[in-house]
Amino acid sequence: MYYYKEELINIIEPDQPDPAAAKVLQEALGGQFGEMRTMMQYFFQSSNFRGKDKQFQDLIRGVFLEEIAHVELVQKTINQLLNGAGESTPGNAGMNAAPIDEAVKHANPHHFIMGAQASLPVDAGGNPWSGSYVYSHGNLIADLLNNVVLESTGVLQKSRIYEMSSNKTFRETLGFLIVRDNAHQNAFAKALEMLGVSWGKLFPVPNYDINKYPECRKYVDKGFHNIQFNFRLDETRIAEIFQGKSPSRNGGDLSVTEPPQGFPVPQMPEMPNEHAPGLSDMNR
Amino acid sequence: MYYYKEELINIIEPDQPDPAAAKVLQEALGGQFGEMRTMMQYFFQSSNFRGKDKQFQDLIRGVFLEEIAHVELVQKTINQLLNGAGESTPGNAGMNAAPIDEAVKHANPHHFIMGAQASLPVDAGGNPWSGSYVYSHGNLIADLLNNVVLESTGVLQKSRIYEMSSNKTFRETLGFLIVRDNAHQNAFAKALEMLGVSWGKLFPVPNYDINKYPECRKYVDKGFHNIQFNFRLDETRIAEIFQGKSPSRNGGDLSVTEPPQGFPVPQMPEMPNEHAPGLSDMNR
Amino acid sequence: MYYYKEELINIIEPDQPDPAAAKVLQEALGGQFGEMRTMMQYFFQSSNFRGKDKQFQDLIRGVFLEEIAHVELVQKTINQLLNGAGESTPGNAGMNAAPIDEAVKHANPHHFIMGAQASLPVDAGGNPWSGSYVYSHGNLIADLLNNVVLESTGVLQKSRIYEMSSNKTFRETLGFLIVRDNAHQNAFAKALEMLGVSWGKLFPVPNYDINKYPECRKYVDKGFHNIQFNFRLDETRIAEIFQGKSPSRNGGDLSVTEPPQGFPVPQMPEMPNEHAPGLSDMNR
Amino acid sequence: MYYYKEELINIIEPDQPDPAAAKVLQEALGGQFGEMRTMMQYFFQSSNFRGKDKQFQDLIRGVFLEEIAHVELVQKTINQLLNGAGESTPGNAGMNAAPIDEAVKHANPHHFIMGAQASLPVDAGGNPWSGSYVYSHGNLIADLLNNVVLESTGVLQKSRIYEMSSNKTFRETLGFLIVRDNAHQNAFAKALEMLGVSWGKLFPVPNYDINKYPECRKYVDKGFHNIQFNFRLDETRIAEIFQGKSPSRNGGDLSVTEPPQGFPVPQMPEMPNEHAPGLSDMNR
Amino acid sequence: MYYYKEELINIIEPDQPDPAAAKVLQEALGGQFGEMRTMMQYFFQSSNFRGKDKQFQDLIRGVFLEEIAHVELVQKTINQLLNGAGESTPGNAGMNAAPIDEAVKHANPHHFIMGAQASLPVDAGGNPWSGSYVYSHGNLIADLLNNVVLESTGVLQKSRIYEMSSNKTFRETLGFLIVRDNAHQNAFAKALEMLGVSWGKLFPVPNYDINKYPECRKYVDKGFHNIQFNFRLDETRIAEIFQGKSPSRNGGDLSVTEPPQGFPVPQMPEMPNEHAPGLSDMNR
Amino acid sequence: MYYYKEELINIIEPDQPDPAAAKVLQEALGGQFGEMRTMMQYFFQSSNFRGKDKQFQDLIRGVFLEEIAHVELVQKTINQLLNGAGESTPGNAGMNAAPIDEAVKHANPHHFIMGAQASLPVDAGGNPWSGSYVYSHGNLIADLLNNVVLESTGVLQKSRIYEMSSNKTFRETLGFLIVRDNAHQNAFAKALEMLGVSWGKLFPVPNYDINKYPECRKYVDKGFHNIQFNFRLDETRIAEIFQGKSPSRNGGDLSVTEPPQGFPVPQMPEMPNEHAPGLSDMNR
Repeated sequence: MYYYKEELINIIEPDQPDPAAAKVLQEALGGQFGEMRTMMQYFFQSSNFRGKDKQFQDLIRGVFLEEIAHVELVQKTINQLLNGAGESTPGNAGMNAAPIDEAVKHANPHHFIMGAQASLPVDAGGNPWSGSYVYSHGNLIADLLNNVVLESTGVLQKSRIYEMSSNKTFRETLGFLIVRDNAHQNAFAKALEMLGVSWGKLFPVPNYDINKYPECRKYVDKGFHNIQFNFRLDETRIAEIFQGKSPSRNGGDLSVTEPPQGFPVPQMPEMPNEHAPGLSDMNR
Repeated sequence: MYYYKEELINIIEPDQPDPAAAKVLQEALGGQFGEMRTMMQYFFQSSNFRGKDKQFQDLIRGVFLEEIAHVELVQKTINQLLNGAGESTPGNAGMNAAPIDEAVKHANPHHFIMGAQASLPVDAGGNPWSGSYVYSHGNLIADLLNNVVLESTGVLQKSRIYEMSSNKTFRETLGFLIVRDNAHQNAFAKALEMLGVSWGKLFPVPNYDINKYPECRKYVDKGFHNIQFNFRLDETRIAEIFQGKSPSRNGGDLSVTEPPQGFPVPQMPEMPNEHAPGLSDMNR
Repeated sequence: MYYYKEELINIIEPDQPDPAAAKVLQEALGGQFGEMRTMMQYFFQSSNFRGKDKQFQDLIRGVFLEEIAHVELVQKTINQLLNGAGESTPGNAGMNAAPIDEAVKHANPHHFIMGAQASLPVDAGGNPWSGSYVYSHGNLIADLLNNVVLESTGVLQKSRIYEMSSNKTFRETLGFLIVRDNAHQNAFAKALEMLGVSWGKLFPVPNYDINKYPECRKYVDKGFHNIQFNFRLDETRIAEIFQGKSPSRNGGDLSVTEPPQGFPVPQMPEMPNEHAPGLSDMNR
Repeated sequence: MYYYKEELINIIEPDQPDPAAAKVLQEALGGQFGEMRTMMQYFFQSSNFRGKDKQFQDLIRGVFLEEIAHVELVQKTINQLLNGAGESTPGNAGMNAAPIDEAVKHANPHHFIMGAQASLPVDAGGNPWSGSYVYSHGNLIADLLNNVVLESTGVLQKSRIYEMSSNKTFRETLGFLIVRDNAHQNAFAKALEMLGVSWGKLFPVPNYDINKYPECRKYVDKGFHNIQFNFRLDETRIAEIFQGKSPSRNGGDLSVTEPPQGFPVPQMPEMPNEHAPGLSDMNR
Repeated sequence: MYYYKEELINIIEPDQPDPAAAKVLQEALGGQFGEMRTMMQYFFQSSNFRGKDKQFQDLIRGVFLEEIAHVELVQKTINQLLNGAGESTPGNAGMNAAPIDEAVKHANPHHFIMGAQASLPVDAGGNPWSGSYVYSHGNLIADLLNNVVLESTGVLQKSRIYEMSSNKTFRETLGFLIVRDNAHQNAFAKALEMLGVSWGKLFPVPNYDINKYPECRKYVDKGFHNIQFNFRLDETRIAEIFQGKSPSRNGGDLSVTEPPQGFPVPQMPEMPNEHAPGLSDMNR
Repeated sequence: MYYYKEELINIIEPDQPDPAAAKVLQEALGGQFGEMRTMMQYFFQSSNFRGKDKQFQDLIRGVFLEEIAHVELVQKTINQLLNGAGESTPGNAGMNAAPIDEAVKHANPHHFIMGAQASLPVDAGGNPWSGSYVYSHGNLIADLLNNVVLESTGVLQKSRIYEMSSNKTFRETLGFLIVRDNAHQNAFAKALEMLGVSWGKLFPVPNYDINKYPECRKYVDKGFHNIQFNFRLDETRIAEIFQGKSPSRNGGDLSVTEPPQGFPVPQMPEMPNEHAPGLSDMNR
C-alpha cells in the first residue's frame, strides 16, 4: 500500500509565466520518455516480477516510488509556468478586450481549454500518453536493458528541452531531473553489471558535461547522481545492488539514503477566468 | 512524496488459472473506467487543484492514494489468473507438442507474447490505456460530477464483468472493488452535497442488491462502503467532508479510518517457457 | 436543420441471438468503410462544399441523409443479434452458475461490459471509430472519386461479412445495404460521368452476381439500386445529376423518389443482468 | 428516418477571417466535449435504449436531433473564419510571393492542406475525433449522469474558448451554443430529478454570470435556455419530462416548442488557391 | 530481396533553414496521403496479390520501389530545412542565452526534442503515421481505384503545401514529387483503362496548370510524368500496362525506362547542441 | 535508390492453413517489436544519421535493407497460413451453408474482411502499426542501445510466438528470423563494443538454447547468426564494424557476405469467395 507526505521532492523556483515553455515541458511529463512512462513502466515491472531474486524487484519498485514524486514535480512546474499567463478578468463582458493570444498562437490550447491553465497527460505535441509506451517483458535482462535505454533517452531529451527556455522555474526542475535520471541509469546499469555486462566508458548517455548545467551542479555536489532514495516503510534489498563503484565513466560510489528534505507544495491561485475552482461566488 | 509498505490491500484468493477471465478483467485495470483511469485522474486533479478549499484537495488525493493500491491489486489478480496457463516446457524441442491453444484462441495473445503471462496497461479489447481518458477540468464541481460518474460507471462495468467467470480469484477482487467504488461514490457525492446537490434516492448507481454478490457481503459487514482509508503520513482534512450521513440510499454514517490490515504480496513463480525472469540458467 | 420520423429504413428480420455475428457486423457500423464513415464524410463534404454547383452539394447531402438512417439500421441489427445472448439472471447470487462464455470467448467483450449488449462505435476488431477516416478535400473531383472508392470498398467488405453467418437478421440488413451501396456507387459515378469519366464495363465493384444474394433480389426488383431517396423537406437539385442511364454495367435508368415505406423501430427488452435500463426496481 | 431543411439553426455573423480562432474552435466541433461527441453519444444512447420508458428515449433523441444542427453550425462558423485567409492566387507561378504564413505558424496546417480551408473532424490540438469518446452504458441513470457532465463540461470549455478571440463570427456561435448547452443541462438534470436527485443550487455548471456574455443575452431573453426544440415529424413524449420548474438555480419554466426560425446557409466562395472545387477551368 | 545504391532520386537544392516549412512538409512524409503511405500500401498490395495476372503485380511493386526512394528524398529534404536552425552552442552554460524560439513557437517541437533536428514518421499536425492508412483489399479493381485516389489526393495536397513557403529546398522536392505523382496517377489509371474505364478529360486531378510550378517544368520537359522507372534487377512485365497513350488529358505516350541519374546523398553536419551523433568528445 | 530481385530471403514451408496462427504471427509483422518497426526505425536512423562516422550509418542501413525482405517474408508466411482457410464458394447463394466460423471466432476477422485472407499492418491484437514505435534520436549511442533492445525483445517475443502453433509454415519462418535477430543483436552490440561497452556473458537475450528450436539449427550451422548480408550495389563500410569476435556468449567470428540464395516467391491462388483479385469473370 502507498502512503504520502505532502512535500515536493524539489523546489519550484519562482519566475515569470511562460506558456510556450509549459507546452514543451509536457514532453517530460506525458512524452514517450517522460515521467509518466517511467512511473508506469516500473510499476508494471515490479508488480509483474517473477522468481526469487527480490533484490531486483525492490530496485525497480524503489525507482517507481521516486517517479511518482517526479510526476508530481513536473505537474507543479507546468502549473507554475501557466499561473498568471493570459487574461485574468472573466468573461470580458463583451468589451472586445485583448484575447488570450498566447493560448491561440504559441501555447498548447488545451492548457487553456481542458485544464484551467494546468498540466495534462500529453506530450509536447499534444498527443495523449499511451499505455503502449509501457514495456514489461517479464525477462529481467530485457526489462533492465529497456530501462537503461529509457533513462538514457529521457536525459537526452531533457538536455534538449533545457535549451528551449531560460526560465528559471523550467530549468531548475529539468536540472534536478537530469541528475536523478543519471542516478537511475546507474541503478539499472549496475544491476546489469551484476549479470555480466561492463559499461566501460559508455555511460552516461548522452556524453554531456554536467558542468554546463549550473542547475545540476548543486545536486551533483550533494551526490544525488549516485544515490538511491529509499521510500519504503518496511525492509528493502535495494542496497544489495545499488552499492560499490558507479558503472558510469563519472565514477564515485553508489549508496542508498533516506529521501531528501522535502519542499512545501505551492498552493495554486484561483483562476476566475477559467472558472477554477469556481466556488468563490456560490452562496456557501 | 510517496512511501510504500509491501502489502496488498486485499487478498488474492487462490483458484484455477483462467486466461479468458484475465482478458476481460483487464477492463478493470486499463479500461476507460478502470483503476488506471481513476488513479491518474485523481492524481492530476489533486496536483492541479486551485484555491484554498484544501479539504476537497485532500479528499481527492486520499482516493488517489488508495487507487494506486487498487491498480496493484488488479495487476496481481490478472497475474494469478495467468499463472499455470499454457505449456510449461520451454521450446518444446520441436516435438510438435500441443501449442498454447488458449493464447491463440480464447485469451489476449499479448498476455503470452508481451508480458510473460502478466498484466498489461490495456482494456478487455486489447486497446492501450490513453491519457485522453483523464479529466482534470480545474472547475471543482465539474471535476466532482465527473468523478461521481466515473465511480458509478466503474461499478456498473465491474458488476457486468463479475458475471463472466465464476473463478474465485476473479470474483473476490471484483467484490472488494465494487464495495470500495461504492465508498468512493459516497465520497464525491458527499462533497457535492456540501455544495448544494441532494442525491435523494438515486445512489448508488447501478441500483444493485449487494446481497447478490456474496464476495461483497463481508466487506459491507466491515462497513467498507462507508469508510475512507487514510494513507497520509501527515495531516489531512478529509474528515471535514467524509463524515455524517451517507448520501446513498443505503444509509449509514461515513468515517475516516486507518488503512485496512494488509495482505502479503504473492511471489510469482518463474515461467521458463516465457524466459521469465530468465536468470535461472545463467552462470552467476 | 434535421427532422425525424420514428421509422426504420428497412425491416429487422427476427432470428436467434448471435453475438459472434454482432462482433463482425460492427465493421459495417464503425469500420473504416462502414456507415459511420460514409455518414460523417458526406456530412463534412456537404457542409464544406465551395462554389455554385449546388446540384453536387445536394447530391452529397442527399446521400448523407440516408446514411444517418443506415447507421440506425445497423445499430438496431447489432442490438437484435445481442438480445437474449448470455445469462439473464442478474448477479447469479454467487451460485457459480455458468458464466457468460460467449462474452469471454467468441464475442466482443465490450458488447457486454460497456454497452448493455448493444452496439458500439467500433469496428470488427474493437478499434474505436476515428475522425481520420473522414476525407473532405474540397476539390470536387477528388471528393467524388474518394466517395466512389468508399462505396465500392464498403460493398466489397459487406459481401465478405455476409459469408460469416447465415443468421437472417444479419443477412437481411447486409442484403439491403449492398443494394443501396450500389445505388450510391451509381450516384457518385454518375456525377463523375458528367465531369468526363466513362466507367465502361468496370462498375459495380466488386464484380458480384447479385442473384447469389437472395436477400438482395427483392430490393433489386424494386429498383433500389437505381433510386435516390429524397429526404429533403425543401427543394433539391439532385435530379439534375441522378437521372438518365446508370453508369454501371448493370444498366437501367436512375430516378429520384420519395423515401421508402418505413418500418417500426423495435422496442428493446430490458436486460436486468446488465442493469439496463435499471429503473425497474426503483420506487417510482 | 431523417429529413432536412436547408436552414442553419443560428446566424453566421460576418467578421474578418481568423484562422487561429478557427483552430481553437475545432474543440467545439471535434473535441472530447464537442458537438460531434454530443451528437454521436445521444444517437447511440437513443438507438440502444432498453425498456418501456419511452419518454426518456424521446428526450435523448430530441437533443440528438438538435446536435446534428449544432455540428453543421460549428462547421460553417469555422469555414467562415477560414474564408479569405491566406493567398488567393493559385500556384504563385514561382514568383516567390508571400507564403501562407498563418497556415504554417499560427493555424492548424491541416485546415490548409487537407480541407480547402474548411472544417475537420479534429480538436483544437489536431487530434482526430474518436469513437472512444461516446458513452452509451445502457443503464439510464448512468447515461443521464454522464450527459449532464458532458453538457456541463461542454459549456465550461466553450466559456474558455470564448476568451480566445473577440471575432464576432466566433463569439456569436459560442454564445448561442452556451445558451443551448444550458437548456440541455436542464433537460438531463430534469430527467434525473424525476428519478430522485435534487440539484439544489448546484446548476448550471460552471457558475457563470450569463450577463457577461452579450451574445448570450438575446437568446436568454427568448428563453432558449429553458426550451427544448422539437424536430419530430411524428409524436414525441419529451414534454412529459421537459416541463415544470427548471432544475437550475436560474429558475424559470421548461417548455417544448417548434424549432427556431432558420437562417440561410451561406454559400462558400470558390478557393482557386486550394483547387476548390476545382471545376472552374474544365470545359463543361 | 532488396538492394541499394547510395544515390538520391533527386537533388537537395540548398537554401536557408526553415523549421516551419519542415513542419508542414512532414505531411508529404508521414501524412495520410504521404510517401510512407504510398510505400507501405503498394508493398502490402504487391505481397498480397492473388492470381496470375502478374503484370499488375509488377506494376504495383514497381511503384513501391520508387516510393522507398521518395521517402528517403523527403526525409533528406526535411533534414536540410532543419540543419542550422536554432542555437548551435551546447548547454548554453547557464548564460541565459537566447532559447530556441523557433522550436517552441513555430516549429514541431518534436523535431528538436525527439530527433536531433531530423525527420519523424508523423504528419504536419504531429500525429504519428498509422497502419490503418494502408488499404490492401485484395480485389484488384478496388485496389487500383484506391491507388488512383491516393495519388490524386497526394498531388492535391502537395500543390497546397507548395504555397506555404518559397524556400527552394522545399519547393524543388515538391515540384519533383508532383510530376512523379502524375506519372503514378497515369500508371494506375492506365491499368484501370485496360479493365474498362475511360478517364476522358478528368485526369489529372487536381486540374492544375503545371506551368505555374517552375520547379516542375524541367521534369515535364524530360517526360517524367509519362515514365515508369524500372528498379528491377530481373524481368518485369510492367511495360505490358505502362505503354501507349497516356490516360490523362495532358496526352503523350507512356514508357518504361531505367532509373534516373542519381544524386549524391548529402552528409549531415554534426549537431552538438542536440548531442548528435555525440561521439565527438569521447576518447576513441 | 532501391532495387529488387523477385526472390524471398527464406523458404515458405508448406503446411495446413491455420488462421489462428496467422493472427498471432501478425505480432512479428506489425507489432511494436516486429519487422515493420525494425525496417522503419533503421530507415529513419540511416537517413537522419549525422557526422562522418559513415561505417555506423552503413551498418544501420545494411540491416534496414535486410528488414525489407523480412517484412515480405512474414507477409508471405501469413498469406500461406490463410490460403485455403474458410469457405471457397462465393456467396453461398443463400443456402445457409456453414459460415466462416474461424473468421468469426478464432481468427482476426479483419484478415477476412479487409484483406482477401491476406496480411495486414497490425499486431496480434489487431492494433494498427504506429509511427510512434520508431525511435530515431540522432545520438548514435542512444540509437544503438535502442536497437539492441529492439532486437533482443524481438527475439524474446518470437520465441514465445513459436510456442503457439506447431504448424511448419509458421515455425520455419520464426526459426529463420530468430537466428537473424541474433545476428542483428550482434551487429549493434559490436558497434557499441567499439564505443566502450563490453557485453560479457549477457548476450544473447533471452538466454535460450538454440538447440531447442530445430528450425534454427540449420541456419546456425550455416553461421547465419554471425553473418551480415550485404545488399549494397556500391561500396559499404559495414565490415569495419561487423568483424572479429562476436560480442555474444555464443562466440564465433563475425563476417559480411553476399545475400543468401533466394527462394521463389509463391504465387497466391485466386480467392473467389473474397472477390480476389476479382478479374476472373470480367470479359477481357
